[in-house]
Amino acid sequence: MSENKVEPTRKNFIEEILNPKSLCVFGANNSPLTTMGAMQLRNIIAGGGFSGALYPIHPRLEIVQGLKAYKSIFDVPIVPDLAFLILPTHIVPKVMEECGQKGIKRLIITSGGFREIGNKGKELSKQIDAIADKYNIRFIGPNCLGIYNGWYGFPEKKNAYFNTCWPYLPPERGNISIVSQSGTIAAQIFWHAKNMGVKIGKSISVGNERNIDIVDFLEYLFHDPHTDVIGLYIEEIKRGKEFLKLAKEITPKKPIVAMYGGGTQAADRSIRSHTGSLAGNNKIFNAVFKETGIFSTNSIMDFLYYLRTFSQAQLNRIFPQGKRIGIITDSGGSGSMMAKTAELYGLNVPEFSQELQEKLKESLPSTASVSNPVDVTFDTNFMNLLFHFPKLLMNSGEVDVIIVYGVFDFDEIMDTIEESGLSVDEKMRNISQIVDTGLFRPIKRLMKKFSIPVYYVGPFPYKYPWYQKFISYDVPIFDFFDYPTKCLSILCRYTEYQKKFL
Amino acid sequence: MSENKVEPTRKNFIEEILNPKSLCVFGANNSPLTTMGAMQLRNIIAGGGFSGALYPIHPRLEIVQGLKAYKSIFDVPIVPDLAFLILPTHIVPKVMEECGQKGIKRLIITSGGFREIGNKGKELSKQIDAIADKYNIRFIGPNCLGIYNGWYGFPEKKNAYFNTCWPYLPPERGNISIVSQSGTIAAQIFWHAKNMGVKIGKSISVGNERNIDIVDFLEYLFHDPHTDVIGLYIEEIKRGKEFLKLAKEITPKKPIVAMYGGGTQAADRSIRSHTGSLAGNNKIFNAVFKETGIFSTNSIMDFLYYLRTFSQAQLNRIFPQGKRIGIITDSGGSGSMMAKTAELYGLNVPEFSQELQEKLKESLPSTASVSNPVDVTFDTNFMNLLFHFPKLLMNSGEVDVIIVYGVFDFDEIMDTIEESGLSVDEKMRNISQIVDTGLFRPIKRLMKKFSIPVYYVGPFPYKYPWYQKFISYDVPIFDFFDYPTKCLSILCRYTEYQKKFL
Repeated sequence: MSENKVEPTRKNFIEEILNPKSLCVFGANNSPLTTMGAMQLRNIIAGGGFSGALYPIHPRLEIVQGLKAYKSIFDVPIVPDLAFLILPTHIVPKVMEECGQKGIKRLIITSGGFREIGNKGKELSKQIDAIADKYNIRFIGPNCLGIYNGWYGFPEKKNAYFNTCWPYLPPERGNISIVSQSGTIAAQIFWHAKNMGVKIGKSISVGNERNIDIVDFLEYLFHDPHTDVIGLYIEEIKRGKEFLKLAKEITPKKPIVAMYGGGTQAADRSIRSHTGSLAGNNKIFNAVFKETGIFSTNSIMDFLYYLRTFSQAQLNRIFPQGKRIGIITDSGGSGSMMAKTAELYGLNVPEFSQELQEKLKESLPSTASVSNPVDVTFDTNFMNLLFHFPKLLMNSGEVDVIIVYGVFDFDEIMDTIEESGLSVDEKMRNISQIVDTGLFRPIKRLMKKFSIPVYYVGPFPYKYPWYQKFISYDVPIFDFFDYPTKCLSILCRYTEYQKKFL
Repeated sequence: MSENKVEPTRKNFIEEILNPKSLCVFGANNSPLTTMGAMQLRNIIAGGGFSGALYPIHPRLEIVQGLKAYKSIFDVPIVPDLAFLILPTHIVPKVMEECGQKGIKRLIITSGGFREIGNKGKELSKQIDAIADKYNIRFIGPNCLGIYNGWYGFPEKKNAYFNTCWPYLPPERGNISIVSQSGTIAAQIFWHAKNMGVKIGKSISVGNERNIDIVDFLEYLFHDPHTDVIGLYIEEIKRGKEFLKLAKEITPKKPIVAMYGGGTQAADRSIRSHTGSLAGNNKIFNAVFKETGIFSTNSIMDFLYYLRTFSQAQLNRIFPQGKRIGIITDSGGSGSMMAKTAELYGLNVPEFSQELQEKLKESLPSTASVSNPVDVTFDTNFMNLLFHFPKLLMNSGEVDVIIVYGVFDFDEIMDTIEESGLSVDEKMRNISQIVDTGLFRPIKRLMKKFSIPVYYVGPFPYKYPWYQKFISYDVPIFDFFDYPTKCLSILCRYTEYQKKFL
């Protein structure tokens, strides 16, 4: 189905849809909230990419969201690179025909009401197929939210993005790309992604895949230099053989994480009404995922965490060389739970050598434990916990991955103390500064040097500024002790998988 | 080991430790952060419970955190109800002896360095046993953080709490009580608990359980009128037979959720150094949990969510009468994933009757689906999604539990629109007000009337004010689609378990 082998340096229909220089929008007005299209246009404008090259088409309005509106596509002074249709279903064929006559080759069709509603919708689907064929049009949808492209216009337009979805909070731009048969999983994840540091470069809601399907997007992303990790939400795979072949080529280089939405009775019923897909047996999909080296889950948090894990590993090329985990903690209970889950997930938590234990003891109170987990108990030398001990473990050669439990929002704690009328001594006030300059860049250098990831953990929700600071430095941070061992086990599994292809 | 059968209306040693009228504190100074004791005293003061009856003991300081300090316990003008020791290990016996001489009968000992560090510590443990026997002292610890009591002084001291732990953010007071062999799991959960609406009344870090153990606390909590749900973090059970017997009595009335920290090689090693316990085989603990009807997990988020689930069910006596789940969503993908996980967790997602489907169709766009999941697609009649459809489902008699996906922070969305220079029409601006007055109390009334829980879900992290609003009304809200089906399955399992005893 693809026009040409995807090379991002060459012209490609997906590249063109993701990076149009000009855009016309059908179905937007001045009432966001009551119409989805208005919100979608609002988000396109907020992305800042289209100075002067954005053309709302509206039968009555003169001005739409501050932009001159046109009664018809034929009134638009240029041939836009892309048309975006958020229209009642029945007029989609007519508008599409007009776009074809105008010479527009790329479309995104948000409108629902096609095959997912039954026979009448199927007829309409055939109509739009015919129009696409007639004018050589490639389009995303129908029944989709469209796209988010954090790399829009890069590198010329440095801070621009292109978001046709209604969720308005763009995630931070990164090396993760998502292709989803659900608009929610493409775009409603933005709030959590932003909050927990899942850095997404592209997210595509593919809808009914009438013209461009997951396989097309996978081909594109395989060669996309901005994509290191791929997330999929799947309700069906139309081209099974091509999917299998391509996924097997991709996963040794770019890990894929997938959620499959079907496989149970009610889920399949839900899917039929959602995108009109015929979902299949769980076992078949599990076999597909296994054969292709795709990591799959039914949990949206797993999905986001796995993507983040691979994103950070790929970004700095930090892949563990084995499964030996070192745990440093200032909380005994958290240490026990992480040691336990690490072992349950198949990691090893080796007892440290006497030599390493002696070295650790030199800087610790007598109540501390040094065998692994290292439990520093209550110790205010935060730089030991956060930096010097991880460094000691790295140098020892006794571990492949490290978890550090005990990240607090130091500023919050000190503010709380001062609000109580107590003074924080100068040395401690500086902790924030010391950690800031002494931890982030140095630990990243060490992680890269040793290829040993260090995962930081603490009991605060991500909203706290200190956690956001870790995120801004791309240093892995976790908001409690459930996910660090789970993510490390996934990372170790992927590293082993990857080795088979070297 | 218990002095007397626990009845909260009668005097009881645990009740006395949780609600002292006067308190002396050994080991606090004016430097929070560098010493744990100072932070603990800061938190006790912040709780606002002890006007004038708080006595810091310090060998040198005249004033500790604004309070007159005493050189020795013998200088304190009264006999305090409770002594709180945050002291170097070696002087604990001496101070304990002095407390005994002074006539203090209740102690909390934070100091570590007892059996968990080996033979020398074991000797010290025997010393403090002997002193406790001599003076008829009951104490929590050693090697603990102490207690949080949100019901301190209730109902006279309405807004007071008693928090001896170093984490300073008290959770909202509720009907959950926690007993933990880890200070972290007792108190570092406060940040998430507050954020996600896990309302905790009491949390006790029991440490080495030298004098008061989990069984004592369970006896107390069984009869505590402020406790409806119990959370346990366990590294060992000292009195197995008593634990089994008591837990079996408790669970039909008050659900228990447990985490067990041991059972793997490294976890057991960690536990030995943490509290000195000899942890045991996972299988044994799983058998204990099964026999006693305790829900167990290795995940801290499961732990917090299960507690919240039972807390809300118990508070309003909303227990589902079966396992039929109705799903209403404005996102097809979320609907599919929840239908799928619901079925995987053993819930039923029945297809609705034609009659119910017709009723739903009356208020929905043609692209919507009504069979279950109900997918309203993009529909701005939020009151249908949030209230009228759940009500319709309740009245139909076709479901026992309901999930509604599609809660956004409406104010945030409208602010975003207005910040873009667009106007939000008056009808929509009122949505916030309409939902506020039209949803929370009415849906709670319906939930109680039908005994059908309604779980609300959306893609926002809990930090958003609209999610906090749900929490403030005790209406179940979830920050994405992983946990609603999981929690409902736990709730249904408990309801079935409970029925066996009626």
